[in-house]
Amino acid sequence: MKPIDGGVCAPQGFQAGGIRCGIKGGSSKRDLALIYSEAPCTSAALFTANRVKAASVLVSQQHLARGQIRGIIANSGNANACTGEAGIAAARRMAELAGAALHIPGEQVAVASTGVIGVPLPIEAIAEGMKALRGAIRADAQGHEAALEAIMTTDIRKKSGSLEIEIAGLPIRLGGMVKGSGMIHPNMGTMLCFITTDVLISQELLDQALRRSVQRSFNRVTVDGDTSTNDMILIMANGEGHNPPIQTEGTDFAVFAAAMEGLCVNLARAMARDGEGATKLLTVTLRGAADEASAAVLAKSVASSNLVKTACFGADANWGRVLCALGYAGIDFDPHKVEVAVASAAGHLSLCKEGMGLPFSEDRAKQILLEDEIEIIITLGQGSGEAVVWGCDLTYNYIRINGDYRS
Amino acid sequence: MKPIDGGVCAPQGFQAGGIRCGIKGGSSKRDLALIYSEAPCTSAALFTANRVKAASVLVSQQHLARGQIRGIIANSGNANACTGEAGIAAARRMAELAGAALHIPGEQVAVASTGVIGVPLPIEAIAEGMKALRGAIRADAQGHEAALEAIMTTDIRKKSGSLEIEIAGLPIRLGGMVKGSGMIHPNMGTMLCFITTDVLISQELLDQALRRSVQRSFNRVTVDGDTSTNDMILIMANGEGHNPPIQTEGTDFAVFAAAMEGLCVNLARAMARDGEGATKLLTVTLRGAADEASAAVLAKSVASSNLVKTACFGADANWGRVLCALGYAGIDFDPHKVEVAVASAAGHLSLCKEGMGLPFSEDRAKQILLEDEIEIIITLGQGSGEAVVWGCDLTYNYIRINGDYRS
Repeated sequence: MKPIDGGVCAPQGFQAGGIRCGIKGGSSKRDLALIYSEAPCTSAALFTANRVKAASVLVSQQHLARGQIRGIIANSGNANACTGEAGIAAARRMAELAGAALHIPGEQVAVASTGVIGVPLPIEAIAEGMKALRGAIRADAQGHEAALEAIMTTDIRKKSGSLEIEIAGLPIRLGGMVKGSGMIHPNMGTMLCFITTDVLISQELLDQALRRSVQRSFNRVTVDGDTSTNDMILIMANGEGHNPPIQTEGTDFAVFAAAMEGLCVNLARAMARDGEGATKLLTVTLRGAADEASAAVLAKSVASSNLVKTACFGADANWGRVLCALGYAGIDFDPHKVEVAVASAAGHLSLCKEGMGLPFSEDRAKQILLEDEIEIIITLGQGSGEAVVWGCDLTYNYIRINGDYRS
Repeated sequence: MKPIDGGVCAPQGFQAGGIRCGIKGGSSKRDLALIYSEAPCTSAALFTANRVKAASVLVSQQHLARGQIRGIIANSGNANACTGEAGIAAARRMAELAGAALHIPGEQVAVASTGVIGVPLPIEAIAEGMKALRGAIRADAQGHEAALEAIMTTDIRKKSGSLEIEIAGLPIRLGGMVKGSGMIHPNMGTMLCFITTDVLISQELLDQALRRSVQRSFNRVTVDGDTSTNDMILIMANGEGHNPPIQTEGTDFAVFAAAMEGLCVNLARAMARDGEGATKLLTVTLRGAADEASAAVLAKSVASSNLVKTACFGADANWGRVLCALGYAGIDFDPHKVEVAVASAAGHLSLCKEGMGLPFSEDRAKQILLEDEIEIIITLGQGSGEAVVWGCDLTYNYIRINGDYRS
């Protein structure tokens, strides 16, 4: 598994691009992206669990259900959510416009939107921009970068990756881009994630690899507990790597699934690191739970606690807040067996053993917690369940960004 | 039901007081409180659902299980949580010391603590202060005020109340004090609530009235989603009002239960208003849910959302965040029937109907949301379930207070 350049354009036969069509009003930023596979694809996707779903989600779900996706049209600056029948019609038209430009059926195009809720989508601006967008897509890293820029909203960093593996001696590539801050717990800036690969694989196994990967990556990220109306993760596999088709769960599938999980974990960590206003990436590692599912719930409770998050911001080794957050996670455990430690590039320090505080140097703790990437390591002593969850600190800038997002 | 003065000392036969014994270190603030009934009581209590329970909670639960409580000893500045066997012994000793000073068995005294987790309780300071504390208790508003001050930590406002009702033509009084910010969703500053009354009532009915009241008051408050190790609400009823004993669910019980609910709602609202760093009280009223329980879950999801809370801070009528928070509450509803409005002393404004935005004046919305007490009114159109939940905005000061709480 080696890192390569190119993002979603790294796999063979994919093109991408992004332009400014004017959805973001006076802004000079790109706001419309297109990703396209020259060959037909197998595809799989996961969508938000929110009861309130954006028009783009509803239309993409329909298109996925009817067949295979080989194009993605995505806009930023407008969520096209809570926009009624007109919003659905606009999302459908977006897919049709992109399909027409690419000479493929509109039903083979997925639609994604991110931005403000409840404002009609300026579909005419998208229609007018479509020709320029079609002309802008290209099969290299520049195309990838432009598309990525066009889906960003409050994101500060660009979050993408690509890698190469070998299947039956042949090079196979995966590339991905993501915007936002989580799948289960994203902020309203919405998580959109698009993955491309030139592997040849059955739809069932592609879907299975995606679900497994998301479970241990995007579903382990928490920024502020809110789940957006627009979240979407979509993968297209076009088979242009010409490997022997992966149709069973053998070694080839294992290699591909591991690569996909690796890519997703990197993107998920990058999202947490780029949480709104965040100054630190927080990794919560929980060991010794009854099982992996309980471990994930407990770790997420810690990583989601506003009090733990503000303590991380303040570089305060307040392990009592960690125990408190474990205690209200709704999972049974023995408080008298809990151990808590913190770690970072600056070192490792035990704070709590058998549910009680250890004497420790506050200066040493501060030194560890002042790093950009910090880890809270919890051991429960109940079993062998383990999970890693990523989050970030809660800062003044989170309040600033979200205290006047619309205005 | 008329408001009266005196707090927990308003009912006949109760005394209270508070002193500084030195738990808060160099601070000149009071840190040790005592509340005492001259006559034996019936009592009832509810404790934190957190798996990690403070020593004070464990000891008070034992004392409650064994008999009736007529004294409460409470300290601030130290939570006596995650302090092991020594912590339990210290909590027991606290009850014994208070019992000895009051000439009642230690088992008739409940213990409450609030403050930093994981630091040994300085029990000797409490032992040394006990004589002064015993001497300081008195049956008037001053005693109440001193006790209230002694249980406050990051609280800014004093939160208490007392009222008088009539039962069988006789005046009956209830008084209460609270510190912290919630029962289900308190901050780590811990919620402690002590209620006194001179009603004569059976233990079963006292317990029932308390549970019902808490359900619609403290359980409807949310500040930051964290549930403390130390939360406790305790009521003592000493019968000194000499009403005909309330032993069945007739009119007398209804009058008493309504008064208790009224007192608890006022204390709960005051807690939300005093949430850490809060500048506004947020009331979320949800109507038209399938039932009251779903209504409470949905309203709490809105009031707990960091994005809704920051929008309230920014006086931004971002109704899309309200719909989003409803959508991830885990309750089924039809997004196309949702209505959202905001209201305050400055007026009422509809923002969303049939799940879609209405045209509205942003200036008008800002004017309404700039008030100190604001309301979000949601109508679902599913049934007749209704609930009111109280919360507060999320501000720079929340980050400041919690970014360096320990240090």
